[in-house]
Amino acid sequence: MSGLLEKYRQYLPVNENTPLLSLHEGNTPLIHATHLSKRLGVELYLKYEGLNPTGSFKDRGMVMAVAKALEDGSRSIICASTGNTSAAAAAYATRSGLRCIVLIPNGNIALGKLAQAMVYGAEIIAIEGNFDEALDLVREISAVEPITLVNSVNPFRLEGQKTAAFEVVDVLGDAPDVLAIPVGNAGNISAYWKGFKEYKEAGKNQNLPRMFGFQAAGAAPLVLGHKVDNPETIATAIRIGNPASAHFARAAVEESGGLFDSVTDDEILEAYRQIALEGVFCEPASAASVAGILKLESQGRLEELKGKRIVCVLTGNGLKDPNTAIKAVNAQPVVVKADLESVMRVIKQK
Amino acid sequence: MSGLLEKYRQYLPVNENTPLLSLHEGNTPLIHATHLSKRLGVELYLKYEGLNPTGSFKDRGMVMAVAKALEDGSRSIICASTGNTSAAAAAYATRSGLRCIVLIPNGNIALGKLAQAMVYGAEIIAIEGNFDEALDLVREISAVEPITLVNSVNPFRLEGQKTAAFEVVDVLGDAPDVLAIPVGNAGNISAYWKGFKEYKEAGKNQNLPRMFGFQAAGAAPLVLGHKVDNPETIATAIRIGNPASAHFARAAVEESGGLFDSVTDDEILEAYRQIALEGVFCEPASAASVAGILKLESQGRLEELKGKRIVCVLTGNGLKDPNTAIKAVNAQPVVVKADLESVMRVIKQK
Repeated sequence: MSGLLEKYRQYLPVNENTPLLSLHEGNTPLIHATHLSKRLGVELYLKYEGLNPTGSFKDRGMVMAVAKALEDGSRSIICASTGNTSAAAAAYATRSGLRCIVLIPNGNIALGKLAQAMVYGAEIIAIEGNFDEALDLVREISAVEPITLVNSVNPFRLEGQKTAAFEVVDVLGDAPDVLAIPVGNAGNISAYWKGFKEYKEAGKNQNLPRMFGFQAAGAAPLVLGHKVDNPETIATAIRIGNPASAHFARAAVEESGGLFDSVTDDEILEAYRQIALEGVFCEPASAASVAGILKLESQGRLEELKGKRIVCVLTGNGLKDPNTAIKAVNAQPVVVKADLESVMRVIKQK
Repeated sequence: MSGLLEKYRQYLPVNENTPLLSLHEGNTPLIHATHLSKRLGVELYLKYEGLNPTGSFKDRGMVMAVAKALEDGSRSIICASTGNTSAAAAAYATRSGLRCIVLIPNGNIALGKLAQAMVYGAEIIAIEGNFDEALDLVREISAVEPITLVNSVNPFRLEGQKTAAFEVVDVLGDAPDVLAIPVGNAGNISAYWKGFKEYKEAGKNQNLPRMFGFQAAGAAPLVLGHKVDNPETIATAIRIGNPASAHFARAAVEESGGLFDSVTDDEILEAYRQIALEGVFCEPASAASVAGILKLESQGRLEELKGKRIVCVLTGNGLKDPNTAIKAVNAQPVVVKADLESVMRVIKQK
């Protein structure tokens, strides 16, 4: 068993000086969604990125970015993040003996979201400002200090992330007909498209998928065609109003004959429940990919894809957000007396 | 990529009528703990079971138990559980179209712990009684109704769990010198030992490991030699006073020349932090294995193992218990003004 840098080194910016850092990221399951496939009349697969070491797809890009930081002799990394990015950065930093500094906006940050990064030993600095100011500051600091920036403006992040497309092809034997993916900062859709194209050039896949990017309705700049000032959605991992990789994402959709569309929070939660009934527990943001496919089906726009292979990317683990799980089930256990008759009465009622 | 039933079918009770059910369980990372290995003078590896589909090693046994239930024509499964077992049972049940009923003691159950099973569609029944009564009831129900019991008294659970030992051998090329493992209900240590022995008979490993079982000090019946009436520990997944598989576990330790020992909650939390600094985030109970090795070292009892290979089993994902993570870090972010100078002052202080 090896990590991504070793397995896909010929397709990555890995040279003899790049340390083959790994926490065994990647190699995540591609799970056939049996119930949804039957209902929709397509072959639907779930690319479950929640089984990466820190629980999200961010590990793929971070292992590459941190390895390159090490290669360059850096001793510290920095990022602005309130969630998955900080966890991934902190894990690979501590693994390789680097210092990890995370800037966050002060206030309204649930400690639970940050606890993972803090357990991995990251130093958290809260600034009296918003997220954009935090990002500006880390850019500024990395420009003047010997501290490597590992936010997604670091180009090595996308290089690592493209390996997910390789894995899909390795399992299916070719690219799927459609790759459906949640879109927030728009880096991941760009990385998948890059991966499918490069793997095709290497002769690994014959076809290229159509790229379907789904945004949350309250944070849908690529659907609306303009920035969103106060993005709002339950899917916090894609609550972004001004995506850093917007131009790459637009190119991916255009070149592939794909589409952007938006899904409401209710549609996201319904998809989240449907995915769980396949036996897969994902972050709310992850469910945007399946929500998008369900929306197309409800509008009769899935007809041309009957019998085709659709891969829906699930970006993170449901355990990252237990509060949404509690809200989504919206149920309390039935309480009964501790005897056989009482319990059997409940069991036979249903 | 395939699941455990397919990969290890020749070593499992799988026949032509057994469905090859899978959520891509198993194939979990064996991670070399570089910092701890250096400090202890041994080759320490972490078998990180948190990357199983529902976040714990329970998936290995559950996929086998549910597949056998399907083979027998069962339409429902039942268990008593407040944690990892219920999540695994619910996931494989919904995957295969079975009904899943979970009995829990009423009161003092955090909904967060149950939310995962509920999202997977399990029906939860809370009884006005304690855990032992819940277990008695599910045994009684499965004896008189066509509902399959999937608690660890189901022998197929241990059969599935032994595959973790196979994976360790497959990666290392032989069994390690020591297998260190948290012990609660004592099923897992029994399953590993069975796995190492059977794989040796098949010629896969030459050696057998010494089995080191570590219990929480407040729930250590196998160390004390008697039942514990009110077990207490922060490591809830091993808070068990009367282990179901005690006799198997004692045999494993005796036959292998191993040992049982106990670790305090403080020792568990310290190990939990040390493991995170390797880049691996586990459940508190998981850390008992590493805590045990650290305790032996502090007592000078690790001398004879210098240079040897020790595998510490980490049974579950740290994301299962965010509250412990928050307590373990016991820190609040520094808050500063949103300007370069203020942030740099904090960064340069450390």
